[in-house]
Amino acid sequence: MNFCSHCAGRVSLRIPPGDRLPRFVCEACGTVHYENPRIVAGCIPEWEGRVLLCRRAIEPRRGLWTLPAGFMEKGESADEAAARETFEEAQARVEVLGLYTLYNLPHISQVYLMYRARLLDGVFAAGEETLEADLFDESMVPWDDIAFPTVRETLMHFFADRRRGRFDVRTGTIGPAPWQRPPAP
Amino acid sequence: MNFCSHCAGRVSLRIPPGDRLPRFVCEACGTVHYENPRIVAGCIPEWEGRVLLCRRAIEPRRGLWTLPAGFMEKGESADEAAARETFEEAQARVEVLGLYTLYNLPHISQVYLMYRARLLDGVFAAGEETLEADLFDESMVPWDDIAFPTVRETLMHFFADRRRGRFDVRTGTIGPAPWQRPPAP
Repeated sequence: MNFCSHCAGRVSLRIPPGDRLPRFVCEACGTVHYENPRIVAGCIPEWEGRVLLCRRAIEPRRGLWTLPAGFMEKGESADEAAARETFEEAQARVEVLGLYTLYNLPHISQVYLMYRARLLDGVFAAGEETLEADLFDESMVPWDDIAFPTVRETLMHFFADRRRGRFDVRTGTIGPAPWQRPPAP
Repeated sequence: MNFCSHCAGRVSLRIPPGDRLPRFVCEACGTVHYENPRIVAGCIPEWEGRVLLCRRAIEPRRGLWTLPAGFMEKGESADEAAARETFEEAQARVEVLGLYTLYNLPHISQVYLMYRARLLDGVFAAGEETLEADLFDESMVPWDDIAFPTVRETLMHFFADRRRGRFDVRTGTIGPAPWQRPPAP
């Protein structure tokens, strides 16, 4: 951030009076520009015991498999965002059943909210950001080609909890993945 | 938003190629400025069966009672944010026990995450944004002077679930409060 989005003045990074963190503050009009974590909302869409996964057509992690998920928009709820992303990425209509996981990713200032969901009619297809979408039995999940740690954790808990017959909400904090860490010196 | 925070060019509200929602896009450098919902994280801090509430020293809802909560910052987890806000607003140190409620407030693009917590030592005091802090038995909660619907809902569920002896995560969507709605014509 270089300029004030309100008046186009120069901003500088400093701690405003009464605050405790540095913020971008406009040197001309004084506007304080706050930045906050973003929510990624998605689904674990089930159909006849299988789970719908998407192979990513875009970076990061192009070519690897993920659950349908994306940034929550203003004016919607997190479960609406999860259903919308499932339609955009996998062209699938779902009934959202309930919150299942909340993962903090403080290194990239994101919070993942993943919801259990049921396909309404078994119909799906690759959306614009997806190379292919497919339903997987637990034994067929491509564990070595899962795009993100949050998705791997969510899927592993999901299958274990499904066997157990009970889905409590799971929460946790996940650090950088190996491909996000700087190489050792 | 009037200007690009990257180059100070004029922005206009339009749908970028491949997108489906209007965004502020810079007419000079093409940067797309996304805006997303914000997370408010807070605690239900307990001490010897009583719950710690804060009377607000700032608008909105100055003079009314709330649970300690505030905007999550970049680089922290939601439970860390909840504990930090509890210290800032009520000068109380807590152990966070678990996620308790997730409320969507789509009309103001916020998601509330409230955590159950336990005071470490029973010490508390009014922080800068608080007129006074105090511990309340269920029978003494000032229900008519609670600042926000999310806080009222969280407290009502909390006391009911505590009697029941089990705290499942509760989720929901809450619309504008009466004081946020425009007056009837």
